[in-house]
Amino acid sequence: MGKDEIYVLKFGGTSVANVERINEVSKRIASYAKRGYKLVIVVSAMGDTTDGLINLAKKINSSPSEREMDMLISTGEQISASLLAMALHKRNLDAISFVGHQIGIITDSYHTQAKILQIRTKRIKEELNKNKIIIVAGFQGISRSREITTLGRGGSDLSAVALAASLKADVCEVYTDVEGVYTADPKIVKKARKIKYLTFDEMLELAGRGAHVMQTRAVEVAKKFNIRLHIRSSFVKKGGTIIMKKTPYIEEPVVRGVTLLENEAKITICNVPDKPGVAARIFTELSLGGINVDMIVQNVSHKRITDISFTVSKSTLNKAIRISRKITKDIGAEDVLADENIAKVSIVGVGMKSHSGVASKCFYALAKNRINIEMISTSEISISCIVKKKMGKKAVRALHNIFGLDK
Amino acid sequence: MGKDEIYVLKFGGTSVANVERINEVSKRIASYAKRGYKLVIVVSAMGDTTDGLINLAKKINSSPSEREMDMLISTGEQISASLLAMALHKRNLDAISFVGHQIGIITDSYHTQAKILQIRTKRIKEELNKNKIIIVAGFQGISRSREITTLGRGGSDLSAVALAASLKADVCEVYTDVEGVYTADPKIVKKARKIKYLTFDEMLELAGRGAHVMQTRAVEVAKKFNIRLHIRSSFVKKGGTIIMKKTPYIEEPVVRGVTLLENEAKITICNVPDKPGVAARIFTELSLGGINVDMIVQNVSHKRITDISFTVSKSTLNKAIRISRKITKDIGAEDVLADENIAKVSIVGVGMKSHSGVASKCFYALAKNRINIEMISTSEISISCIVKKKMGKKAVRALHNIFGLDK
Repeated sequence: MGKDEIYVLKFGGTSVANVERINEVSKRIASYAKRGYKLVIVVSAMGDTTDGLINLAKKINSSPSEREMDMLISTGEQISASLLAMALHKRNLDAISFVGHQIGIITDSYHTQAKILQIRTKRIKEELNKNKIIIVAGFQGISRSREITTLGRGGSDLSAVALAASLKADVCEVYTDVEGVYTADPKIVKKARKIKYLTFDEMLELAGRGAHVMQTRAVEVAKKFNIRLHIRSSFVKKGGTIIMKKTPYIEEPVVRGVTLLENEAKITICNVPDKPGVAARIFTELSLGGINVDMIVQNVSHKRITDISFTVSKSTLNKAIRISRKITKDIGAEDVLADENIAKVSIVGVGMKSHSGVASKCFYALAKNRINIEMISTSEISISCIVKKKMGKKAVRALHNIFGLDK
Repeated sequence: MGKDEIYVLKFGGTSVANVERINEVSKRIASYAKRGYKLVIVVSAMGDTTDGLINLAKKINSSPSEREMDMLISTGEQISASLLAMALHKRNLDAISFVGHQIGIITDSYHTQAKILQIRTKRIKEELNKNKIIIVAGFQGISRSREITTLGRGGSDLSAVALAASLKADVCEVYTDVEGVYTADPKIVKKARKIKYLTFDEMLELAGRGAHVMQTRAVEVAKKFNIRLHIRSSFVKKGGTIIMKKTPYIEEPVVRGVTLLENEAKITICNVPDKPGVAARIFTELSLGGINVDMIVQNVSHKRITDISFTVSKSTLNKAIRISRKITKDIGAEDVLADENIAKVSIVGVGMKSHSGVASKCFYALAKNRINIEMISTSEISISCIVKKKMGKKAVRALHNIFGLDK
């Protein structure tokens, strides 16, 4: 701990939802400032501002241009950033707010889901050296052709981690409306417990599989640059969940958490000719179309014909169907089916690597509860199952129970 | 009229106040687009968005930093610009929205009342050549040090006129919620009539004296670059008021309009030593403090001591008092008095130049109605009187009547 330590603190939408909460946040920042740290604060838009703007846009144009969406929704963080600066001024703290183009948060040009290419930290460093508290409008950047871009849902997390990495920050704290990461969503599983330490890999799997505490891409960047994260609540003083390279445990618990994801949809391309390059073709086209594919399942083929199923975010479903239909024609497949009524339940834990029997225990628990599994996908440290949407919560409770996560 | 004519159209806050009105505006723009014009559209923030943001800021900090205010309130136009682009896309029109930094609207660094130094039209011209409809977030620009600046109340008018000048536009239409400029505010004078033609000078005097139809600075720029303006309603199809260098009249009517301004306050510096340089000192300090002084009155002095009175916008009153107090000490004057309960009534008309007796007729009308005059100031084409605030409307009616403006 020392005077020149750089702290990056990120405050989510609920933390700055209204005037009172912005004042609360400014109080917390003041307590850090008093200790002499150099502070870079990243804020999300106030409460559900972003959703409000999206709804407004949809009223005008049901499929608004992504470039214009970015122009529109990036205003949310600009508003909260400037208001937070004003709240800090009231505490006689010298704060200054910035949006992407002012502090060189350079992204690619994929509107609504841009990637950060580089942060030109010159201006921030200058202002830090003037002992200013930097407030950064999260979630956004600027492309090389000066277009305003946004980083996708939860993008403020990414802004914070990328800034921490670029500034070689000592601490990156992510303030949110929950006290940390839980073994399962407490709304679904009453006995869910807060997890004290998680590895980046575990957090990645949890986040990617429905633990909405932090954006997956943000955790990826934290892992890449080894930025230790502290996910905690802006409403209580307690410590939260620390995400790091290696947890302090000697032996890892087998399963760390159970997640539920309900915002994906399943697409099946039927009767695909089973020849080399077809899968590559499909997923290249989807990727070029900016579609993130999550699970992919292809079974053995019969008569050189097979089905390929995959899941995508519901928000990109229409686009994914459009692209899939086009490919279907080109490759001589038969049909494209889509199903939005699915849920993905997953178990995650680094300890799974060296423990056998985790998968069978998982499938047994679901079967015992009469939950049918539609797709399965596994990684080194996770198992995910697609089930009917209405069975999702039941599945989470069954898995939380069988792996003893309430203990 | 031809294909390559550039039209700059500006739509005020009421014209884009909600989804329906944005759609109406997009319809009107579509009718221009059909005729093949190159279109640059400037928009204000939706309805009272700006006031809403200002109120939000004041809840957090009663005297918010001007730099942060600009960060905050500039979002209003960014929102309406992107929404209008989406509405035009729905009509299959290729539109693209921009904020100041993207299209090089370079201003000085006087936050909340910045001046446009230059518009780098390269990007706009490129996009116009791709047959895009340019939507510009009005009211704002960017300083050379990349700070977001705003141009003061009504600044979108200025954005429009400055763009029209920089692009050498053929037409500049200003759409607002009234049908044009009236001989007096129809809410005060029932018989007020719409004025068909006004000179820049007349419009300047009217705008500066309370006809809120258009921002004074915007008219100044229009005059400087001889940009013919058409002020008209976005709700009806009728023509409005055309502002030009010379009206088509052979002889100008004597008085064109009567205005009322209630947003000024009077400051009097009492017992000022009457020696050379004192007035210069006072108004230099105020100007350096960013205070726009309107009327100035200094009477003959007694015993080398005089009073100096002047009016400033109420919004800058506190700052003006602060500066005045400081000067008062320095120059050995006695006291600073301020009065917010004043109104300024003015009569305006180019014809006044060559007609005698206008002033006496004006004072006679006020006296006859028992309205006391506290300050008088005259220009070539206008006479303004400061009266008690509660007498303002009565004064307007008296003047409208005596100069026969209802005929």
